[in-house]
Amino acid sequence: MSTNVFTSAVFPLQTMDVPGGAETVLPGGRHLFGLLPAAFAGVRRIGVIGWGPQGRAQACNLRDSLAGTGITVAVGLRPGSASAADARAHGFTEDDGTLGDWLAITAEADLVILLIADAALAAHHEKIFGALRPGAAIGLSHGFLLGHLRTTGGGFPAGHDVIAVCPKGMGDSVRRLYQQGASVNGAGINASFAVHADHSGRAVDLALGWSVALGSPYTFRTTLDSEYRSDIAGERAILLGAVHGLVESLYGHYRLAGDDPLAAYEHSCEAITGPIRATISRSGLTAVREQLDGPGRDTFDRAYTAAYGPSRELIAEIYDEVADGTELRSVILAERRLADRPMSRISGSPMWAAGDAVRARRAGRQAAAEPFTAGLFVATMMAQVDEFAERGHPWSEIVNESIIEAVDSLLPYMHARDVAYMVDNCSRTARLGARRWGPRFQAAYEQIAFPAAAGPADGELLAAFTGHPVHQALAAAAKLRPSVDIHVT
Amino acid sequence: MSTNVFTSAVFPLQTMDVPGGAETVLPGGRHLFGLLPAAFAGVRRIGVIGWGPQGRAQACNLRDSLAGTGITVAVGLRPGSASAADARAHGFTEDDGTLGDWLAITAEADLVILLIADAALAAHHEKIFGALRPGAAIGLSHGFLLGHLRTTGGGFPAGHDVIAVCPKGMGDSVRRLYQQGASVNGAGINASFAVHADHSGRAVDLALGWSVALGSPYTFRTTLDSEYRSDIAGERAILLGAVHGLVESLYGHYRLAGDDPLAAYEHSCEAITGPIRATISRSGLTAVREQLDGPGRDTFDRAYTAAYGPSRELIAEIYDEVADGTELRSVILAERRLADRPMSRISGSPMWAAGDAVRARRAGRQAAAEPFTAGLFVATMMAQVDEFAERGHPWSEIVNESIIEAVDSLLPYMHARDVAYMVDNCSRTARLGARRWGPRFQAAYEQIAFPAAAGPADGELLAAFTGHPVHQALAAAAKLRPSVDIHVT
Repeated sequence: MSTNVFTSAVFPLQTMDVPGGAETVLPGGRHLFGLLPAAFAGVRRIGVIGWGPQGRAQACNLRDSLAGTGITVAVGLRPGSASAADARAHGFTEDDGTLGDWLAITAEADLVILLIADAALAAHHEKIFGALRPGAAIGLSHGFLLGHLRTTGGGFPAGHDVIAVCPKGMGDSVRRLYQQGASVNGAGINASFAVHADHSGRAVDLALGWSVALGSPYTFRTTLDSEYRSDIAGERAILLGAVHGLVESLYGHYRLAGDDPLAAYEHSCEAITGPIRATISRSGLTAVREQLDGPGRDTFDRAYTAAYGPSRELIAEIYDEVADGTELRSVILAERRLADRPMSRISGSPMWAAGDAVRARRAGRQAAAEPFTAGLFVATMMAQVDEFAERGHPWSEIVNESIIEAVDSLLPYMHARDVAYMVDNCSRTARLGARRWGPRFQAAYEQIAFPAAAGPADGELLAAFTGHPVHQALAAAAKLRPSVDIHVT
Repeated sequence: MSTNVFTSAVFPLQTMDVPGGAETVLPGGRHLFGLLPAAFAGVRRIGVIGWGPQGRAQACNLRDSLAGTGITVAVGLRPGSASAADARAHGFTEDDGTLGDWLAITAEADLVILLIADAALAAHHEKIFGALRPGAAIGLSHGFLLGHLRTTGGGFPAGHDVIAVCPKGMGDSVRRLYQQGASVNGAGINASFAVHADHSGRAVDLALGWSVALGSPYTFRTTLDSEYRSDIAGERAILLGAVHGLVESLYGHYRLAGDDPLAAYEHSCEAITGPIRATISRSGLTAVREQLDGPGRDTFDRAYTAAYGPSRELIAEIYDEVADGTELRSVILAERRLADRPMSRISGSPMWAAGDAVRARRAGRQAAAEPFTAGLFVATMMAQVDEFAERGHPWSEIVNESIIEAVDSLLPYMHARDVAYMVDNCSRTARLGARRWGPRFQAAYEQIAFPAAAGPADGELLAAFTGHPVHQALAAAAKLRPSVDIHVT
């Protein structure tokens, strides 16, 4: 656990009890903003390169948090970028020097945060590295570039801090919850940080300052490699791919059992993104089971028993492919193949039409935490928790990447839109991953879990669930997060 | 096309007209068995290493074809192999020296045919190479080892012929159709051959002799690399993976449309493995469409239109991953992961129980070539044909690997058992591939093709189908194959 222990010359840290030890964490909040100038010492200008959801959220949060400090935040875009108008609408303008060409902005910044799309990062990182000022820090928000450099035999340039601050949620959530933080201090999206190269000797505090300025309720330490593996594997599993596969399989299951399309949607997708999500967010994983009546609990237990094994098998496969670099090679191959034809969309299947109707009639209805659906979903979440724990990830990373990011960022978004919409509109790396692995989960549920759920529950597996150390870790993480009502418009 | 033109000092060759040129082929038959001693000149002993379905079929066929020539065929097994009893039951015994330890058999053979499982070949090829006599020829029946050596940086030993004869069908079919060849001369499974290293200067004739002795109706030339790519991609697509995904998706489709389980099975799986397969085998691809009435043809056309695009997209993805080596890395990772736990089976889903009942009531019933099912299946087959053609494969390889192997070997087997049984019981490389890609096809049909099939047919796409050059290539190949009634008991 020594990699998860760290010190700061600027911020007051805490020790969080987790199974088997403790992790150093930095609880966030607006009361820390006064410490930001010390954390950012030597940084006069931050360049945020890229204006996707994450770029927009981070540029806005950083600017707002650093207002009055004299540190400016500027946005760099590719020549002719279609995002310039939106950046201007958010107050970044060529006139005051806070909007410009990506290489020019890079050349003027003391901290360059790279938030362009993965494929663009893969194609253009050398150009950006070449434009850096001597000693400027390189900032990342996930480990994709490390994976890419490893797969292609490249590396980071010497003489620069290389740090990462990785919000465990979508860009939209990073902005929305930050804004809620104005009234509920500490609201935000948790983040991990990593120091991959510490040229300045101040990289830890620079990363912590960046995270506090984004509004992270708490910040924990990881490595860029650990972040990369859990991030890419997680989005292929419980964060996106598995949810996609699960709702597709469940919708068909309930339709065949006699549900009309709207009821089938409510029993599958709506149950997960609504009540099951809300219960986990508020009260943890075991609460989902405890809130059920006797027969419901029996159904939950049999579904949990049936789904845990095939989910775990798949998540181990995903993890191996990510760790080996195979998954990223597939992404690179797909980008090449798709250079001159669009990716087909998956949002045309009948269940998504039912989703529109279900959302339209939501007012006054209370969807139920369907026990069969709940058992499958929670089993898949626990399979990811166990696989990540077996692979040696820190507990903060496990609970954030497997539970908190799901219930506090992605599922609320899916509740507002739907899962297929999210797949079709997320980052290309995530989109390709969800299309690649979602169907694998669907098939595993349909072909292995559903038939097995007719059998009895496995008492040992259920005991391992109810007594699992993850509940302690999740509770410790929850204490650091103020209660906010998450909704997406 | 120059790689597909070759000469032989032993066998009478033919030129087969294919789109855009011609290919040299060797039509087979028992009347050529008298030429085998000349083809095998210098070979006194053939070692067949491994006793899976392919090992059993090839050892038996070679022994029977070479009876009376003085060339012996011996089977080599790993110490303690569970296959020894079956080999003895087929007439290979320790007493007469035709059954023994794999390394001992290797050390005595002039031609060593490696038919052990892929994972065993990956793990033990160096040991076997080390046991070879000077100048002994190495024989393979697919390109897996080349892919493995390339992925891991290894190579074949110098000083040996390296040849491949690759029957385009399962081992059981290779034996069964060979036996039918006793009454219908030329019945058998087509094969490709490749000469990867020609140390002796006689490698082409050695390979041709091997193929004739297996009973190949005709033998065409390829390269080990081309064989590897089309073989591994083909089994992930129309030969196995796509069929698995297609029948799973169609079964659910027909069930939701109101079919009871047996009717849904007949409209999906039974239609493909029965009448659609038989029509293609007897009369080619366009006959499937031509035999439909007007409304049926309209349904076929819309299904074809809807499925071609997503199938092509997936097959291009598969091909890229196979050619890049990514797919084989995944197999290696899976073998490692599964070393200490069994792979879950996919044969438990409800449709396979319906399959048992459908097979039981087959007598006296004539399944129909359901037009919707037919359109989807033929579109997927054509997508593979087009992708392989775009990637530069010879036409013989395209039609054998995309059409003939399907309709004359694998689908009859699936008709006798079922698709899931076949997935759960085929080679591990194929099994892993089908589990990996079958669900992708299922999702593509369900989420993209089925909704799109409500729209109109694409006249241009249909015209490309009916006027496609593959029909000429398939007809040319069919002329070389005697008509036999294929059935599996």
